[in-house]
Amino acid sequence: MASPTLIELAQKTRQGARQLAGLTTEEKNQAIEAIAQSLEQATPEIVAANQADCEAATAAGIAKPLYHRLKLDETKLKTNIAGVRDVQKLPDPVGRVQIHRELDEGLVLKRISCPLGVLGVIFEARPEAAIQISTLAIKSGNGVILKGGKEALQSCEAIVKAIRQGLSQTAVSPDVVQLLTSREETVALLKLDPYVDLIIPRGSNSFVRFVQENTNIPVLGHADGVCHLYLDESAEREKAIAITVDAKTQYPAACNAIETLLVHRSCAPQILPPVAQALQEKGVKLLGDEASVELLGIPAATEADWSTEYSDLILAIKQVDSLEEALNHINTYGSKHTDAIVTENPQAAQLFLNQVDAAGVYHNCSTRFADGFRYGFGAEVGISTQQMPPRGPVGLEGLITYKYQVTGNGHISATYSGANAKPFTHRDMG
Amino acid sequence: MASPTLIELAQKTRQGARQLAGLTTEEKNQAIEAIAQSLEQATPEIVAANQADCEAATAAGIAKPLYHRLKLDETKLKTNIAGVRDVQKLPDPVGRVQIHRELDEGLVLKRISCPLGVLGVIFEARPEAAIQISTLAIKSGNGVILKGGKEALQSCEAIVKAIRQGLSQTAVSPDVVQLLTSREETVALLKLDPYVDLIIPRGSNSFVRFVQENTNIPVLGHADGVCHLYLDESAEREKAIAITVDAKTQYPAACNAIETLLVHRSCAPQILPPVAQALQEKGVKLLGDEASVELLGIPAATEADWSTEYSDLILAIKQVDSLEEALNHINTYGSKHTDAIVTENPQAAQLFLNQVDAAGVYHNCSTRFADGFRYGFGAEVGISTQQMPPRGPVGLEGLITYKYQVTGNGHISATYSGANAKPFTHRDMG
Repeated sequence: MASPTLIELAQKTRQGARQLAGLTTEEKNQAIEAIAQSLEQATPEIVAANQADCEAATAAGIAKPLYHRLKLDETKLKTNIAGVRDVQKLPDPVGRVQIHRELDEGLVLKRISCPLGVLGVIFEARPEAAIQISTLAIKSGNGVILKGGKEALQSCEAIVKAIRQGLSQTAVSPDVVQLLTSREETVALLKLDPYVDLIIPRGSNSFVRFVQENTNIPVLGHADGVCHLYLDESAEREKAIAITVDAKTQYPAACNAIETLLVHRSCAPQILPPVAQALQEKGVKLLGDEASVELLGIPAATEADWSTEYSDLILAIKQVDSLEEALNHINTYGSKHTDAIVTENPQAAQLFLNQVDAAGVYHNCSTRFADGFRYGFGAEVGISTQQMPPRGPVGLEGLITYKYQVTGNGHISATYSGANAKPFTHRDMG
Repeated sequence: MASPTLIELAQKTRQGARQLAGLTTEEKNQAIEAIAQSLEQATPEIVAANQADCEAATAAGIAKPLYHRLKLDETKLKTNIAGVRDVQKLPDPVGRVQIHRELDEGLVLKRISCPLGVLGVIFEARPEAAIQISTLAIKSGNGVILKGGKEALQSCEAIVKAIRQGLSQTAVSPDVVQLLTSREETVALLKLDPYVDLIIPRGSNSFVRFVQENTNIPVLGHADGVCHLYLDESAEREKAIAITVDAKTQYPAACNAIETLLVHRSCAPQILPPVAQALQEKGVKLLGDEASVELLGIPAATEADWSTEYSDLILAIKQVDSLEEALNHINTYGSKHTDAIVTENPQAAQLFLNQVDAAGVYHNCSTRFADGFRYGFGAEVGISTQQMPPRGPVGLEGLITYKYQVTGNGHISATYSGANAKPFTHRDMG
């Protein structure tokens, strides 16, 4: 499926990445500084290329929110270049000794963190994604094949040209950052199993789902973010109001905003009307189950609402008879992203944190904290809702794997087998 | 694709597993002890069921190695019951605090290890796999849906009956261990994405490949084990002989046995003849590239040999001009399982350990050490050759994921956004 040219490009990236994997933290940071300087020098070209992209998009009748994402003026570029320099300060995730164990005298096992290899990153409009992800890839020792949205083509070309120019004067080969430009190449990239180790899609839910369904390469990301807030029987009124309003309205398009509010039936008459009023004052459209429709005089929610991510000022409300019903609802309709409980009852909180199967389980705080920067990771590569690690907000750690190194002095397994088997010492060396 | 009965069974397993996830180490160990006692009591039934399986298999003309795997006599069962009790001693992988960080005063982030959920384990002949994996699943807080080979049907039924009987007197629901019996159910199990979190296939390479290609559920395992040994220019003769013989002949059917021997051209005339002689004395059939055919008078290897896992006393030999050529060969034909170098040159060793992209990279020791027990993990769930963790030999850790818990006291994200944003403290709490 992939053209010979694309395979060759992928092989070059792989080769560059192998060499990058062996560089020191200092060499990688020098390369990142060179990128920052090169982007500074190329600012006029990048801004002009973006101007051209924006004009073409305007002529094609691009939607306003998309236009804002596409737009990359000098100020925004400056912020992004500052972001590049910030990555220098992040600790190097490569070369950490995770296990160090003597298996027997002179036979030593080490588990050491190392780069994944080559990343395939497919993003929609925002051209600055090319800057962020290239820098994080280099810091973590990985090569990266980028594919931007077609609206951002000229911007991405100018950015990647500057990045590669910067790298050309460093220990890092410019081959580690590549740009694909056609849609055919995107599809082909998803089939490049032997050359690409991780796909990171950045875009709409349907786009991420398309990627997940069309590749055998591991995908870091999430399609849906159907997050819940549950107001328990003993929820404190003021906390319930503040957290609900924040979780729904602080940034409704975010994946960690809530879509469904569950309320214990016994406290609904007291707590739900003021919560609803506060939401409505913020312009939130409410939908409800039968009891909530009756209580609040709002339109009815349908079955489909319980699994819908509105990404907008809309919230579905449901009353439940028990914490167990809330848990069942969340574990049935949730997307394993982030779910929260408001309660003053520590047993209820503990049960919720234990039994909700999600990357993030929160007590008495807003779901909006689910974010790599807020968690203190220094960077966010994506948020994963899969079951296996890495899960939740993923920092540089998500671009890293490990290998087992065993060094001996002629040690063979026969020594440790059979009737006179020598025992292993299995002594941790700290 | 899955029948309503199968979905119902999977849901029951999930429900049992949710409850299991919240139990203490002591409760899980009591359940494991109950399994051991129940298997002891049911020994006559299990041995009789296995006898019946063996007779049916013999009548059907089963191959001898397969028969040996199928056979489960009282002695073998006793060993397995002792293995069950050993699992009690393993540290509980659940509930470990991996990150503990104050985000701000009163707002605390914890990353805590937790069970994956439900495992789907498909194994071929060996019925005792049902015992081992059920015990490890319970220790790690997971439910498990088992599917054994059809030859082992009666044995598996007797074993699972005993396990469930044992569990019925404990805090762990018998529903957490389920047995499927038909081949149709195997295929359906692979499609149970919402109910099964990890598939563990145990069987031949082609069987594992079939599983990998027919499911979207993560698979823990490996299809191929094409391991290499490279004798570098400065390899010491005695180490080279001992390690080559051990890595090829100590257990040739193992996935960590070598299939290809690479030798630096400059030392081949000195080192290869004695190595070849030692191998031939152990009955190893050698195949060679042109230079090795000439040197040793052995049959020629074809291109296909470089990617073949013989799982038998056959070894392909190739001479290379440099360490770089050896690295390229391994990174091209290898299966990322385990590869080793024999050398007295520390720089060469370091380059090899850095640049070979495999779960195991070894220096001056046999590839046969690639094993969870030998690494000191106490148990081995499988060996993974994928790029992302868990990689290499995987112990109980492979059945575990984590979740982020955030607890606050009414904290909302608006406080930390905008012009007067409060900074996070991001203080690690050790």
